[in-house]
Amino acid sequence: APPSPARPAASAAMMAHGVPNAVFTLRTGISQGKMVYIGKGGAIDGQVHPTLTAHKGDIVQITLINGEGAEHDLTVPDMHVVSQRVNGPGASSTLTFTAGNIGSFPYFCTIPGHRQAGMQSLIQVVPATPKEADKGVSIVRDPADMPPPVGERGPMTVRYDLEAIERVGRLADDTTYDFWTFNGKIPGPMLRVHVGDSVELHLKNAENSVMMHSIDLHAVSGPGGGAVLTQVGPGETKSFIFKALHPGLFVYHCATPMVSAHISNGMYGMILVEPVGGLPPVDNEFYVMQGELFTAEPNGHTGLQEFSFDKPMDERPEYFTFNGAVGPLTTEHPLHARAGDHVRIYFGVGGPNFTSSFHVIGTLFDRVYANGSLESPSLAGVQTISVPPGGSAIVDLTVPVPGKYIIVGHALTRMEKGLVGALIVDGK
Amino acid sequence: APPSPARPAASAAMMAHGVPNAVFTLRTGISQGKMVYIGKGGAIDGQVHPTLTAHKGDIVQITLINGEGAEHDLTVPDMHVVSQRVNGPGASSTLTFTAGNIGSFPYFCTIPGHRQAGMQSLIQVVPATPKEADKGVSIVRDPADMPPPVGERGPMTVRYDLEAIERVGRLADDTTYDFWTFNGKIPGPMLRVHVGDSVELHLKNAENSVMMHSIDLHAVSGPGGGAVLTQVGPGETKSFIFKALHPGLFVYHCATPMVSAHISNGMYGMILVEPVGGLPPVDNEFYVMQGELFTAEPNGHTGLQEFSFDKPMDERPEYFTFNGAVGPLTTEHPLHARAGDHVRIYFGVGGPNFTSSFHVIGTLFDRVYANGSLESPSLAGVQTISVPPGGSAIVDLTVPVPGKYIIVGHALTRMEKGLVGALIVDGK
Amino acid sequence: APPSPARPAASAAMMAHGVPNAVFTLRTGISQGKMVYIGKGGAIDGQVHPTLTAHKGDIVQITLINGEGAEHDLTVPDMHVVSQRVNGPGASSTLTFTAGNIGSFPYFCTIPGHRQAGMQSLIQVVPATPKEADKGVSIVRDPADMPPPVGERGPMTVRYDLEAIERVGRLADDTTYDFWTFNGKIPGPMLRVHVGDSVELHLKNAENSVMMHSIDLHAVSGPGGGAVLTQVGPGETKSFIFKALHPGLFVYHCATPMVSAHISNGMYGMILVEPVGGLPPVDNEFYVMQGELFTAEPNGHTGLQEFSFDKPMDERPEYFTFNGAVGPLTTEHPLHARAGDHVRIYFGVGGPNFTSSFHVIGTLFDRVYANGSLESPSLAGVQTISVPPGGSAIVDLTVPVPGKYIIVGHALTRMEKGLVGALIVDGK
Ligand SMILES: [Cu+2]
Ligand SMILES: [Cu+2]
Ligand SMILES: [Cu+2]
Ligand SMILES: [Cu+2]
Ligand SMILES: [Cu+2]
Ligand SMILES: [Cu+2]
Ligand code: NA
Ligand code: NA
Ligand code: NA
Ligand code: NA
Ligand code: NA
Ligand code: NA
Ligand SMILES: [Zn+2]
Ligand SMILES: [Zn+2]
Ligand SMILES: [Zn+2]
Ligand SMILES: [Zn+2]
Ligand SMILES: [Zn+2]
Ligand SMILES: [Zn+2]
Ligand SMILES: [Zn+2]
Ligand SMILES: [Zn+2]
Ligand SMILES: [Zn+2]
Repeated sequence: APPSPARPAASAAMMAHGVPNAVFTLRTGISQGKMVYIGKGGAIDGQVHPTLTAHKGDIVQITLINGEGAEHDLTVPDMHVVSQRVNGPGASSTLTFTAGNIGSFPYFCTIPGHRQAGMQSLIQVVPATPKEADKGVSIVRDPADMPPPVGERGPMTVRYDLEAIERVGRLADDTTYDFWTFNGKIPGPMLRVHVGDSVELHLKNAENSVMMHSIDLHAVSGPGGGAVLTQVGPGETKSFIFKALHPGLFVYHCATPMVSAHISNGMYGMILVEPVGGLPPVDNEFYVMQGELFTAEPNGHTGLQEFSFDKPMDERPEYFTFNGAVGPLTTEHPLHARAGDHVRIYFGVGGPNFTSSFHVIGTLFDRVYANGSLESPSLAGVQTISVPPGGSAIVDLTVPVPGKYIIVGHALTRMEKGLVGALIVDGK
Repeated sequence: APPSPARPAASAAMMAHGVPNAVFTLRTGISQGKMVYIGKGGAIDGQVHPTLTAHKGDIVQITLINGEGAEHDLTVPDMHVVSQRVNGPGASSTLTFTAGNIGSFPYFCTIPGHRQAGMQSLIQVVPATPKEADKGVSIVRDPADMPPPVGERGPMTVRYDLEAIERVGRLADDTTYDFWTFNGKIPGPMLRVHVGDSVELHLKNAENSVMMHSIDLHAVSGPGGGAVLTQVGPGETKSFIFKALHPGLFVYHCATPMVSAHISNGMYGMILVEPVGGLPPVDNEFYVMQGELFTAEPNGHTGLQEFSFDKPMDERPEYFTFNGAVGPLTTEHPLHARAGDHVRIYFGVGGPNFTSSFHVIGTLFDRVYANGSLESPSLAGVQTISVPPGGSAIVDLTVPVPGKYIIVGHALTRMEKGLVGALIVDGK
Repeated sequence: APPSPARPAASAAMMAHGVPNAVFTLRTGISQGKMVYIGKGGAIDGQVHPTLTAHKGDIVQITLINGEGAEHDLTVPDMHVVSQRVNGPGASSTLTFTAGNIGSFPYFCTIPGHRQAGMQSLIQVVPATPKEADKGVSIVRDPADMPPPVGERGPMTVRYDLEAIERVGRLADDTTYDFWTFNGKIPGPMLRVHVGDSVELHLKNAENSVMMHSIDLHAVSGPGGGAVLTQVGPGETKSFIFKALHPGLFVYHCATPMVSAHISNGMYGMILVEPVGGLPPVDNEFYVMQGELFTAEPNGHTGLQEFSFDKPMDERPEYFTFNGAVGPLTTEHPLHARAGDHVRIYFGVGGPNFTSSFHVIGTLFDRVYANGSLESPSLAGVQTISVPPGGSAIVDLTVPVPGKYIIVGHALTRMEKGLVGALIVDGK
């Protein structure tokens, strides 16, 4: 849930079809009787003469918007760039450069007298090492990483601490991507509470983040589902409390514009609100979410992949993923059960866009809580269940025969783009 | 429901990848012993020597098909065009020109003796002013524009008068489109009856229309859902009566081929057939429909946008809309409620193609009548509901906390293409 | 259900963006102390010095992979091709040629001494006549081709014999395609059993097939849904037995990688597992499935169409089909009923990818068994039902008024690509 449907500066820049990865907008104005640059959107929103932080190697884009009418421009002499002059309210100019060296570099207005009057600040280029160290790190959440059932008890206040972490991780063999995550893995941690519980949710944005982030939980009743209260810049923490009124399996996701980009990059997870009496017990519980990645280069290219700005608009993902990467549920983290086990999968779709036709080859779902709802009639004897983006389903199945059961979206060309997992059933 | 699955002339021309907007097909034949041109498809279907009407500025396309075998052609000397000769049954030729000036211009066959024998008629170019006057007019139906509940009563005959109106309206700031509508707004009016009622439906096609139109209601049992009985040319009116046998929320739409183009251009709405005893009362009722627009130029271009003939085939809309335009439910007509209100949204998808993952950020649906069905088990505690094109859902929600609740399809890249609304909740 | 999620050689070749239609991978290795070529994937998997069979006119592609490290290559002198040398484990080279003439042609390694040591075998080019004779043959299964209800009885063992048949058939007027089918028609035969029955399923792959095939039934509990046990090369037959544990309408399909290509090409059908007590009797039962075809040339081109390797990845079908071809349910095999009849349609989606918004214009579904499930609450009064790929629905409707009822997916642009049928209702 974005705080407002207006498209922010970062998103507008994204639409310009370039691929800057450190994007800022500055508006000129008057503050306390002086001419100033004011940050607009993102982590610098509303700041007077903000320090602009980028990582070494970033393509930096600064859009200057004339806010009060007098003529201005913006230069970063160390980067050999100067904007056009903007004259009259609403006039704007954009400049782009690469942050090649670490250090602090002044930016200011070249109109005679303006810099002296205060129109200046710094661009700070920090090392990219935290991300480079991450190269090849797994961002895949183990599907077995499920908290235990809550069990029957009276309502409590449950505290969760989440952290928005941007990190380069492994998308496929020899292919990495600059993921945005909750707690470093995709999906974010499964939160698990009892209906009636109060949830105290703390969201930190890591110090070395470049973007703002936030959280919208579909279990929340209130504006933005929490996102209005949790827009956090790098290093910031915010929190709020909500009451889990409805039992069910609910998606959460970052809701900082452009929301679909934050979701695509990996910022989604789920919260399970257990009903009174709990769910019927099973032998194995798993946590699986479907995602889409939009890379500038086609599926299969190696190296660090850049986000594509066109492909999301065209709804053309290059990768479909279970738990964040290409096929990790077949290799790194297959699901494991024993013959005869009752298995439950908590399945959700981050998306951002594609409905999943969730299916486990060689099994039928004995029970399906469609729409992730625990207040609706459940289904039985279901082969394939449709799950929309921002939606979920709880599926129960039994696996009498040992062997390998392939987990797919039955839109089967997506298997070729990474959407495949395995449930391995050993003899008892 | 098209009267027949055969692709009509207009549609065949559309497939030719040009962008004519006044499209005619003439077949040669023999009528009462004379060689004639006969209109084929559209408003001129079956007419001998039809007058072809276009608006000033239209790109006119005429396809000549040899129907009886003798050699013919077609010329419009004032437009400096002449077709190839068509010789033998089935031979055809197409010519295209721009209707630059208002007036009446002869067309005829140049084969010696044919014009004299009667093979001639007129192209009438009329002012485009009625449409130009419309430029920028809102075509957005206020989501609060809901008729009141029918209440409990015996079966009645209810009369509705609908009019197919083509008008240039506002798609986005500084962007207009030549919409086709029922009663001038998108969606068409909500019809509201009681199960068992007889509905007498009159469909007029406005005098200044260029296309034929019709209506197919999903509440009708009978060929074409009404579309077979209501194909109306410009200025015509037709009517029929049907009995509302099933309670539910049903889509209606124009079903004149190419049906998907008529739907995309705005010709859809809904009829609510209330069940015995009515629906549970709520504080606020709203009416929202999702649509897709296919413009030749990309999303964001200003000025009058042309329909694209390729993009519908590729299922690549440039715009997604609630109630016809880009984001009008956030600006022009947000939904309004007060804290604690029970809110009901009658939601449908015109499409033509995309399933909606309907979601209101910051709320859960307390009750969902999925598929628009009032004879099926309802759902509760639902975060996101899938609604197919030509389908609907009734969703009930409560909004305890004041603030702004963003209405989306959870395929969230579509938000960037216009699919966003707001429910504004004031304190009580 | 593929036996393994690993992408096989044939599929890797497909990704190379060429259009070979006889694709082989050979790995070098040591077998019984000798240097050998070993087949990898497809019908030759694991064979030492396999004979490679192609049809006259095929574009043959052979990928050579170095398996053991010594230097090798591969030549087919009669085709004037020789691969690059592959040196060191994992090195590979691909050659492509056209099988222009019928006959047996040696292939071997040119490294001195290797051919003599045994590194040689044959490419056999067989006549394409069996397929040419098929040109224009109908591959459309009559929707009335439904076995009768099973009726109430104790559990039995029911035997079905299916045959994978590749044949050139009619896709549209003057347009043909090399379909892959079960039993020569699309969809494959409706299997119909009683819950609790044991099904003995024999799958033969026709002698003149080029590909391996298999069967995965969504009614099966066990790895691959049967596909692990039924991978059959040309001329082979395999069988297995399973118990139909759940009532419902279940999709079956070929699950030989690349699975989505086998499905797209026509290898899908359904099995109806009747519940205890059977389904309520109706007057007419029909069998309809939706498919997608990916042709290299756009919709509407005539002649024999080639499979496109890019379009499935982009989810851009050129054709949408009911029962395998363009509009056959309006022309060749419309559905027939009489006024007042109760009609049931067993509807499924082969896909591979698109969810159907199934709708019959001019009717409402009185009853829908959504998800093909007979153990879940059924729905009533439904206008349009979402059916995912690899999913199904049973819909009941009544047609009181004579006339023509058009069958569509309500994503109506697909009608222009072939997705249309008709239910013709005669007076009683
Ligand atoms: Cu974020
Ligand atoms: Cu399957
Ligand atoms: Cu119309
Ligand atoms: Cu949300
Ligand atoms: Cu096959
Ligand atoms: Cu309809
Ligand atoms: Na970044
Ligand atoms: Na899928
Ligand atoms: Na027009
Ligand atoms: Na959506
Ligand atoms: Na294959
Ligand atoms: Na459809
Ligand atoms: Zn950076
Ligand atoms: Zn490349
Ligand atoms: Zn959401
Ligand atoms: Zn016009
Ligand atoms: Zn442009
Ligand atoms: Zn319709
Ligand atoms: Zn072949
Ligand atoms: Zn062409
Ligand atoms: Zn399947």
